[in-house]
Amino acid sequence: MQGLHQFSTPSDNWCQVHFANSEIKVARASKQYIYDDLGTEFLDCVSSSAHVGHCHPHVVAASQTQMQKLWTTQGFLNDTYSLYMKKLMDVLPESLSVVYLVNSGSEANDLALRLGRLYTKRDDVAVFESSYHGNISSLVDVSSKSFKRLPQGKKEFVHVIPLPKCQNIEDQTVENEQANQEKYCEDAQRVIENASKNGRPIGILLSEMVISAAGLVIPPLGYFKNLYQMIRNQGGICIADEVQTSLGRIGGDFWAFQLYGVVPDILTFGKSIGNGFPIAAVVTSREIANCLPEYMNTYGGNPLACAIGKAVLEVIVNEKLMYSAKMVGKSLLEGLRGLMSKHPSIGDVRGMGLCVGVEVVCGRPDMKPATILANRILYLLKEEKVIVATQGEERNVIALTPPLCFTLDNARRVVEAFDKAFTKANQSEESEPVRPNTSFLGLDNIPLNVMGGDEETDTSPAKRQRTYEEMD
Amino acid sequence: MQGLHQFSTPSDNWCQVHFANSEIKVARASKQYIYDDLGTEFLDCVSSSAHVGHCHPHVVAASQTQMQKLWTTQGFLNDTYSLYMKKLMDVLPESLSVVYLVNSGSEANDLALRLGRLYTKRDDVAVFESSYHGNISSLVDVSSKSFKRLPQGKKEFVHVIPLPKCQNIEDQTVENEQANQEKYCEDAQRVIENASKNGRPIGILLSEMVISAAGLVIPPLGYFKNLYQMIRNQGGICIADEVQTSLGRIGGDFWAFQLYGVVPDILTFGKSIGNGFPIAAVVTSREIANCLPEYMNTYGGNPLACAIGKAVLEVIVNEKLMYSAKMVGKSLLEGLRGLMSKHPSIGDVRGMGLCVGVEVVCGRPDMKPATILANRILYLLKEEKVIVATQGEERNVIALTPPLCFTLDNARRVVEAFDKAFTKANQSEESEPVRPNTSFLGLDNIPLNVMGGDEETDTSPAKRQRTYEEMD
Repeated sequence: MQGLHQFSTPSDNWCQVHFANSEIKVARASKQYIYDDLGTEFLDCVSSSAHVGHCHPHVVAASQTQMQKLWTTQGFLNDTYSLYMKKLMDVLPESLSVVYLVNSGSEANDLALRLGRLYTKRDDVAVFESSYHGNISSLVDVSSKSFKRLPQGKKEFVHVIPLPKCQNIEDQTVENEQANQEKYCEDAQRVIENASKNGRPIGILLSEMVISAAGLVIPPLGYFKNLYQMIRNQGGICIADEVQTSLGRIGGDFWAFQLYGVVPDILTFGKSIGNGFPIAAVVTSREIANCLPEYMNTYGGNPLACAIGKAVLEVIVNEKLMYSAKMVGKSLLEGLRGLMSKHPSIGDVRGMGLCVGVEVVCGRPDMKPATILANRILYLLKEEKVIVATQGEERNVIALTPPLCFTLDNARRVVEAFDKAFTKANQSEESEPVRPNTSFLGLDNIPLNVMGGDEETDTSPAKRQRTYEEMD
Repeated sequence: MQGLHQFSTPSDNWCQVHFANSEIKVARASKQYIYDDLGTEFLDCVSSSAHVGHCHPHVVAASQTQMQKLWTTQGFLNDTYSLYMKKLMDVLPESLSVVYLVNSGSEANDLALRLGRLYTKRDDVAVFESSYHGNISSLVDVSSKSFKRLPQGKKEFVHVIPLPKCQNIEDQTVENEQANQEKYCEDAQRVIENASKNGRPIGILLSEMVISAAGLVIPPLGYFKNLYQMIRNQGGICIADEVQTSLGRIGGDFWAFQLYGVVPDILTFGKSIGNGFPIAAVVTSREIANCLPEYMNTYGGNPLACAIGKAVLEVIVNEKLMYSAKMVGKSLLEGLRGLMSKHPSIGDVRGMGLCVGVEVVCGRPDMKPATILANRILYLLKEEKVIVATQGEERNVIALTPPLCFTLDNARRVVEAFDKAFTKANQSEESEPVRPNTSFLGLDNIPLNVMGGDEETDTSPAKRQRTYEEMD
């Protein structure tokens, strides 16, 4: 307006704040592959939003057809919405019969909290340590990972449950699992009782079933049955945040709560359902929904979103992607576990379906987080044209959440690339090197994951926002 | 999952919660027209989201092309984003140089509040009476229209400025405007001083320039200069919520703040920029942006949104839509004002560009709001195949916010339809009829606008959520 801005590429500008200072400029993407502007192909193990594969032709076709007819219908009925609702209802438990369509996982979790608070008439929320539920005010407040970086810290209505962290869900013997579970449940019970004692009874448990931001922590299989019972016994309700785990991500089932044999009172999900299009959902019972007399959302349920959502569900079923995710995920998990004997800095490999985490440590059994090594592995994998991300408090858990069309061949390629990367890293490895200077980021102790960016941490102001923080 | 749900059409289900129980099932839309499933054409005066026209071919083409290449790029660079940013920067004041792309006006206003609070280190927010800024927790808290329906009411950090309501911006003589303005500024000054006296100095003014939910209230032209100054003088910042008024809606200029000769510290906008695709933005100065070390959003800046956003800006410029909105809006305003002498129940006609409000009253000069009559006019206009909405505390302001491709012919048609509708309504008009039973909605005193729905208020549970509340 008043002259040109100093703006040439996103990396010159704060506009870039959403993105990594990645050397990879993506020009196009297809299935589980992304291509940079030189045509180089990368195996994409991070774009969980591209759930059924980047630019899936069935989804693209459905979207292109709808686009010519109708985008926005706020205030009117439209058949596309009805058709999508029918399909969605078919994959939901009967008790969850009311759907609100929104634009993002954050909007979904915020609405879920509002519903929960109206229903329970309580403000207090229990969340896991290191949890992350979204990037709007109400969710920054209840995301342990986020609020602890803020000056005011934890608010009085938030209660933090210690992570139910066990090494590996599948390796556990029945006895171990039982013991772990009891300990974790006691941890939770203590938090619930303390809250109550202090006159702040917990109204809402807001939790993921696989705690992503904490480093893909997978609680023991019996855990949520007990936890949900404890919350409900004292008058609370349970919200399952499945933004990261919905529609078959965990393999075999549509939802992670199915694995745990529970049904949440409110379910939120996103990412997967739009294959990259901004759409998310809150589902709950009629009883809870009755507490909110009305809800409006400009784009919620728009026919474009619904046409895409419906096509995504069709692809999942038609291509048996949930079964595939289970099988391929198992193979990936086993392959990566096979590397543990060779590479002692792989502390743990855990996962369900195509949601796999590799914990990078200074050594076993010490298990001290190896943040810098994990970051180095990222870059070595990038040299192998395999794109991964890091997660966890110490950003030492390499997370793999590829599109569900990921194949057995892809899994083998990833395992080989990991083997190469750890071998290379170990050859040049000293003891855990000094952490890069990240104080300018205002963060306490963790270097952000510079995914595909400059390996050397560049502390110039121009670079400070271009660090890739997490897959949320 | 467990059997079929009782679900046939949206109107059987709470899923329908976003939508009106409208008899109009929209099958397709083009330009400023929507078509129901029988092919009936309606002139759409409400879909402000379809800013440059429903399914505009240039926007559809840009979107279809992008869809085949790349949808999601979280963590990577992409050229589409850069190109869009350049175009957007060109229509923004130089001081507003940092852009955050998000998915909805609500997400934008929430982020703006976060930025404002971090920057001012104050929690307190001043808003207008009857204001509406979005449908997520933090915005329900600061939207006068929303929080007053909640049990807890207004929170202590919220300060409500009386509406700077004058009858008509263009009719005012210079003297009148000066007098009005002084009174409104004194009202605001009192609120600001009281807040400060009570140890809660206002950190943020969050306001629309045309206060939509209050019934398209247009403050006097000098008002915001004074108000912004008052807020800034005591250490606060000013957020302009232009979700409803951005990109030429008010005619002639890209932004409503230009009309008032101010530049906000933070600007939010949405709806218009995606032409129906979920995209919105926060723009601020580098100084304010520096307070938030990082911001991630799964879809923010995705290439699909950017391709669409860029195409929308191109259409606005290529088709001279801002100039057209100004001219056509003027003609519409004059035409509707011409009806005032014939129809005393038209209390006021006000507007800027294609943002026009018709205040329906029991009579002049009394100006008592005629809610039921306004609602009746909606249905009579629908018989004329003209779709409008109501706004305002008493829902007696008929709002016209059509796509910007609205023509002079369309304006004439609307004026004729209003004439017919008021004539018919007056023929059958008694004194203001008894209000329909809306107690089941949990609302205090206002019947919701049942846009295009059953004229008789149906109080059965199946219908309770299908009332169209507002154009947000």
